[in-house]
Amino acid sequence: MADFELTKHLRMPAATKIVQLVMDGLGGLPREADGKTELEAADTPNLDALAARSQLGLAMPVRPGVTPGSGPAHLSLFGYDPLAYDVGRGVLSALGIGFDLHPEDVAARGNFCTIDENGLITDRRAGRIPTEFSQKLTALLSQIELPGIKAFVQTVKEYRFLLALRPTQGQTLYANIADTDPQKTGVPSLPAVAEDEASEATAQLVNEWIAAARDILKDHAPANSLNLRGFAKDPGFPKFPDVYGLRAAAIATYPMYKGVAKLVGMDVLAVDGEEVEDEVETLRAHWDAYDYFFFHVKKTDSAGEDGDFERKAGVIEHVDAAVVPAILDLDPDVLIVTGDHSTPSALKSHSWHPVPTLLWSRYCCWDGVHEFGERTCGRGSLGTFPATDEMQLALGHALRLNKYGA
Amino acid sequence: MADFELTKHLRMPAATKIVQLVMDGLGGLPREADGKTELEAADTPNLDALAARSQLGLAMPVRPGVTPGSGPAHLSLFGYDPLAYDVGRGVLSALGIGFDLHPEDVAARGNFCTIDENGLITDRRAGRIPTEFSQKLTALLSQIELPGIKAFVQTVKEYRFLLALRPTQGQTLYANIADTDPQKTGVPSLPAVAEDEASEATAQLVNEWIAAARDILKDHAPANSLNLRGFAKDPGFPKFPDVYGLRAAAIATYPMYKGVAKLVGMDVLAVDGEEVEDEVETLRAHWDAYDYFFFHVKKTDSAGEDGDFERKAGVIEHVDAAVVPAILDLDPDVLIVTGDHSTPSALKSHSWHPVPTLLWSRYCCWDGVHEFGERTCGRGSLGTFPATDEMQLALGHALRLNKYGA
Repeated sequence: MADFELTKHLRMPAATKIVQLVMDGLGGLPREADGKTELEAADTPNLDALAARSQLGLAMPVRPGVTPGSGPAHLSLFGYDPLAYDVGRGVLSALGIGFDLHPEDVAARGNFCTIDENGLITDRRAGRIPTEFSQKLTALLSQIELPGIKAFVQTVKEYRFLLALRPTQGQTLYANIADTDPQKTGVPSLPAVAEDEASEATAQLVNEWIAAARDILKDHAPANSLNLRGFAKDPGFPKFPDVYGLRAAAIATYPMYKGVAKLVGMDVLAVDGEEVEDEVETLRAHWDAYDYFFFHVKKTDSAGEDGDFERKAGVIEHVDAAVVPAILDLDPDVLIVTGDHSTPSALKSHSWHPVPTLLWSRYCCWDGVHEFGERTCGRGSLGTFPATDEMQLALGHALRLNKYGA
Repeated sequence: MADFELTKHLRMPAATKIVQLVMDGLGGLPREADGKTELEAADTPNLDALAARSQLGLAMPVRPGVTPGSGPAHLSLFGYDPLAYDVGRGVLSALGIGFDLHPEDVAARGNFCTIDENGLITDRRAGRIPTEFSQKLTALLSQIELPGIKAFVQTVKEYRFLLALRPTQGQTLYANIADTDPQKTGVPSLPAVAEDEASEATAQLVNEWIAAARDILKDHAPANSLNLRGFAKDPGFPKFPDVYGLRAAAIATYPMYKGVAKLVGMDVLAVDGEEVEDEVETLRAHWDAYDYFFFHVKKTDSAGEDGDFERKAGVIEHVDAAVVPAILDLDPDVLIVTGDHSTPSALKSHSWHPVPTLLWSRYCCWDGVHEFGERTCGRGSLGTFPATDEMQLALGHALRLNKYGA
């Protein structure tokens, strides 16, 4: 049976509410001192009490041993197998900076680079120019005009930028275009080559834009040229509200997570501030209007990426105190507490480790373990399970799935 | 995504070393006296200490309830789903006796049988003639000459032998040929019938060889005829070093295991002796030259097959003392201790029980359970998992996989 077909077949309406609380990069690794992970070391009385009445498990974002990026990791939590639902790099770049990508846009990831007097690439990253310098260049490139096209150019970070082409006269653009980056130095950039007939006109436009851009950049060494990679359009995934029959809202403060939520058709709610308390306010204000909330906490991941065990544990403690009781006060029917992936401070990066996860509902056969941590989840009754199962488990526990067969 | 495509896409170089220590038939069953399995009854201080800093689980070789042969069980440990990567019986016979099968060879498993004066089969196993008698017959059959073909005939055991046809004039042989064994008595053998057009010439050669062989055998009752089964060629599987990006070496003392390792493209290292200490010497001598070592221990399985609980526990104790510390002294980055399948002494045979498995790396979120055994592994955080996942988990823990998606 195709993806989502069973879910769409069985789902039924109900007046129940589901919250998926995602602490980004939640999973961690033991520290030397006492063998505790960040989550285990954190003092989390509310999560521990909740765990005692929940099922515990470890959620695998992609496949065993595989470390996910943020986009694939979130798609997985929303029930979309990231190997089947592939988002092009251009679209991920747009999501990452909160660019309002339209379905008709073609997006690409751009890299400034350095070329010598013969046009051969000498540095594929233009000496990693500072973001401020990059922003001046993308402002200049934004002035390029193409017939029937609006070309958006925005800095991502350092030498990386986003190019998005939007048709203004109803024409259709196609994104099956090869990278111009030859992936090595000492050779010239490649032209943008269409990989199917439909994409030829778009590739031609891209080449015109590249020529104009290089003309502008030629005096801005080390960023005196550029390459484009990962041409892509909005992949047109099945929409989350349609798949699950849920009015769905996303509460997040960072562009990437709002972007992925938007990609699957959730309403992205405005948050007045950057703190989890502000996100809780948004949740309260919209509680009645939605059936499902994706509630994203960013700072666990940032602390893990910085290798700061104590700070990561502190963020978890803060969520335990400021978010968990507030959500429970709203009386949800299903609450899942999880992460999109692990970000152990020991590794200072995303990792492949499956993520501690708790599923609470009044109809769950709770494990009765009074602690939410990697080790208790590793012995939990959910086992090590694909993160893509979470939404369907949530629907079941929310009494939103009909019986299969008579 | 096809098998290995994700792995090949994500793998990256690293200066890390992986050891997969395979105790053949490791898994066992509880004895009456104290309910302990062979592994649990064995005194294994080194494995227990390692377990405390490892993730534990039970590895399933094929599918629930399915008992694997040695070939499929090892393919699974190497990451090849044995249902998808099927090795013909002829090739397995060749591997099992250490025959140097070439890619152009066609191999078949042969059985001596008894026929009556009308050519009807009366015993499909020729009264299970002794191996020594069989060896005299295969020596005679080795003298058969076919045009453009070298025909190798070697005894496997008792009435079973290997036939391998090797083209000597550059021609191609094909193996899509039906068995000649009618699988019952009272009927004549079938001719070798090609099941596609390409295999017709080879089938004709086989029939010529059979005719010559029967002429030799006619006076050697009860082995006065023969049948051929499982015609096959080297299946040309993806090569392990290419799939995983690892310089891979196999250390084993028995032909079958060297053969399976060779089939997936590992270097098979010479071992000077038959003991695990000799294998350790080989590991030490080649440590710098490889990234991955398959280290095979045979005697656990032999003891299990003999139904000897104490001896099997003793072999495990010997590995604990003589192999585990020696491997750890070499400072690997990832060490997996597992088996290819279970061989409980209570059953005196291979079994379907998933296999106790331990994964150690400096980046594993260890379960903290100070005992390596079936029961602790059954509660471990790896859960009951497909053995085919082991290599991808190892690559992740060896920091040899790039992030999937941004």
